[in-house]
Amino acid sequence: MSEFSLSRRLVAEALGTAMLVGTVVGSGIMADKLSDDVAVSLLGNTIPTGAILVVLITMLGPISGAHFNPAVTFVFWLKRELGLAVAAVYIIAQILGGISGSLVAHVMFELPVLQASTTVRTGAGQWVAEIVATFGLLATILAGIRFREAAVPWLVGLYITAAYWFTASTSFANPAVAISRAFTDTFAGIRPVDLPGFIIAEFAGAAVALALFSWLLKSEKQAANS
Amino acid sequence: MSEFSLSRRLVAEALGTAMLVGTVVGSGIMADKLSDDVAVSLLGNTIPTGAILVVLITMLGPISGAHFNPAVTFVFWLKRELGLAVAAVYIIAQILGGISGSLVAHVMFELPVLQASTTVRTGAGQWVAEIVATFGLLATILAGIRFREAAVPWLVGLYITAAYWFTASTSFANPAVAISRAFTDTFAGIRPVDLPGFIIAEFAGAAVALALFSWLLKSEKQAANS
Amino acid sequence: MSEFSLSRRLVAEALGTAMLVGTVVGSGIMADKLSDDVAVSLLGNTIPTGAILVVLITMLGPISGAHFNPAVTFVFWLKRELGLAVAAVYIIAQILGGISGSLVAHVMFELPVLQASTTVRTGAGQWVAEIVATFGLLATILAGIRFREAAVPWLVGLYITAAYWFTASTSFANPAVAISRAFTDTFAGIRPVDLPGFIIAEFAGAAVALALFSWLLKSEKQAANS
Amino acid sequence: MSEFSLSRRLVAEALGTAMLVGTVVGSGIMADKLSDDVAVSLLGNTIPTGAILVVLITMLGPISGAHFNPAVTFVFWLKRELGLAVAAVYIIAQILGGISGSLVAHVMFELPVLQASTTVRTGAGQWVAEIVATFGLLATILAGIRFREAAVPWLVGLYITAAYWFTASTSFANPAVAISRAFTDTFAGIRPVDLPGFIIAEFAGAAVALALFSWLLKSEKQAANS
Repeated sequence: MSEFSLSRRLVAEALGTAMLVGTVVGSGIMADKLSDDVAVSLLGNTIPTGAILVVLITMLGPISGAHFNPAVTFVFWLKRELGLAVAAVYIIAQILGGISGSLVAHVMFELPVLQASTTVRTGAGQWVAEIVATFGLLATILAGIRFREAAVPWLVGLYITAAYWFTASTSFANPAVAISRAFTDTFAGIRPVDLPGFIIAEFAGAAVALALFSWLLKSEKQAANS
Repeated sequence: MSEFSLSRRLVAEALGTAMLVGTVVGSGIMADKLSDDVAVSLLGNTIPTGAILVVLITMLGPISGAHFNPAVTFVFWLKRELGLAVAAVYIIAQILGGISGSLVAHVMFELPVLQASTTVRTGAGQWVAEIVATFGLLATILAGIRFREAAVPWLVGLYITAAYWFTASTSFANPAVAISRAFTDTFAGIRPVDLPGFIIAEFAGAAVALALFSWLLKSEKQAANS
Repeated sequence: MSEFSLSRRLVAEALGTAMLVGTVVGSGIMADKLSDDVAVSLLGNTIPTGAILVVLITMLGPISGAHFNPAVTFVFWLKRELGLAVAAVYIIAQILGGISGSLVAHVMFELPVLQASTTVRTGAGQWVAEIVATFGLLATILAGIRFREAAVPWLVGLYITAAYWFTASTSFANPAVAISRAFTDTFAGIRPVDLPGFIIAEFAGAAVALALFSWLLKSEKQAANS
Repeated sequence: MSEFSLSRRLVAEALGTAMLVGTVVGSGIMADKLSDDVAVSLLGNTIPTGAILVVLITMLGPISGAHFNPAVTFVFWLKRELGLAVAAVYIIAQILGGISGSLVAHVMFELPVLQASTTVRTGAGQWVAEIVATFGLLATILAGIRFREAAVPWLVGLYITAAYWFTASTSFANPAVAISRAFTDTFAGIRPVDLPGFIIAEFAGAAVALALFSWLLKSEKQAANS
């Protein structure tokens, strides 16, 4: 149990997801504006995202657990570390925070505040990519908490840095971030109509990670006792 | 209280701000000279700035606290961790150190030593960006000190690495650095006439961070006692 | 001895090598597709590979030792820390895992699943490069384990980040990864016919590192006792 | 005193400097060959150099102190932590190791093994840059050892990452590396005739750092006792 009140935990989830989405969307706008080389733009999108994740998880983790991600909250609910009601309000806070991150990015870059993305992101390759991306994210978190809890902020930041590039979808791996990115018609956007495929793939990847790592992380002694 | 004399603390603040500004301005000149792709130049400006912050805060933090930033000194004065007189001389040391950083960069790159920037940085988007940037910087510092003090040099370096890209202003987030950057008509410059808007926004963002995080970082036990 | 069952250790080796190869091949495809500047593509290949190594070694090291590399397993067998049978099944798990990493990358990017590389990588310079690359990797691991075991994931990630660039071969340094990369005709590929030269060079570099560092890491007291 | 024999310490200095120079020269060749954008090439030269420094200082520091740099050895001799004879053989090992690093890089990239650079690096700006670069390097080392010894590998790696960009000379900051880079007519080279200016500037910067930080790092209690 967190030693912080639920209201503080929800503000932490909303603020963290807002700053995460603000970084993804804002750095995407900046990078896209400054370069004609899409790989350079993706570097300018990747490095800030990985960096801010280390910061946000370190500074807000002790308050709320720093999920910032309904797929993570879902797994902790499956693990019975979070009740259904708290999980539900966490997810609402994440989505509202994330959307406000997109809007603030638009204000900073003097773009229309309310937008809907027109970027097509669909098809089997993208869905497999999101399953893989979210599987890897949850694997990182579950094994990280088990073996080196203090390193989890770094592990998540580094994992996402890699996953931006090794997945065909640039690794959304987060339903709240996906929804928030539907609200921006810039570099990081995704068409609202493509959201369901991404979100289903993300929850599926998270569930697979939980299943595999529940077995994999069991030492011989633990396995003998269970 | 620092175990170092005030003169050492002021030299640490001046030297640290000089090296920070020298890095921002010097790497800006280098990157701009070597590339036609502005995003590549910004990478060559961002990575050195983030890296030197980790170094400078680690090496000078135990002496002076490694503020290098009047907005940070202002918050520690508001928190009553610094008297008004010390805060004032800290800020003077930061500004004088920062300006000398710009001048040394010019000497190294064989440019006119004294310059005034002509780069326009103004408007609501830029000001919102500076509020957001400085809010995030102080949030990082306040939460970092509370939860993982030894990591603060890394957190600040990573935060600025991200903020260069997610804010429309490339995140000055520091009145002394802003003033120093008015003294260079290169990649990192800002018109002197645009300084007031930046500086007001920076102090405002810092104050908002202090207000929010004074509440957010209070555990249930602390909240009950206050 | 690991406190985990052999089946878990083999799954960890297979999964880790799969994720490593998936990152190398996947980020290579992504980077190559997005840029015309090969150095930018190599950055987009290097940064994810270094980052994922830190993650994978931290999360799977406590289970299997996180070799992901027959040359590493070979050295631990030479050091009598692993029996021949376990070493053999480790290597089989690494190769099968690695190949599946290539195949999954193809599925994500909607390319033909089964491919054979046509990229020529041969000649004395390449072989010397692989000797140097694998020598350095094992030197990093052996000295890292001796002096700062908790830092080994970082040291390996950083070493490979550097070795991608300072070796003429972009530092495969891993027979299982080399074999897996023969299964992709993309940025990271290597012609199957060029594999023997790479693999021999890699085992040779590993053996030289073991010989030199067995001597170098001996303190005066240890040297006196032996 | 190191617990390792002098022969091991000298091999560590030679090997470390060889791998450092091999990285600087090798990544310079690779980056220059792959890109037309000089800032991209410099990124491909900077990131590997910073990364390998973290690795080399962690793995060889406990054996020899991991100087790899006559300016560092000079400062430790001034501080009476090293006798004159040991300092002299350290410097010889560094220079011989460094030169062999250049030669191995040439072998890997199938270039003529013996070369002399034709790259002009001279003038007041360059010399000031080398004074600043080496001042900063020694400041980092001296303050790092005082306040957070375990972080020194990281601090040096990050400092050099920054200094590549904020100095007009790309921060050689190391007489042994400078001499070794005179042996390569590639991206990282320097004309032999330009060496004296660089080497004098480097020792001068190191001496200034020692003088300033001997005062700055003294706490009030230490200052009272001296």
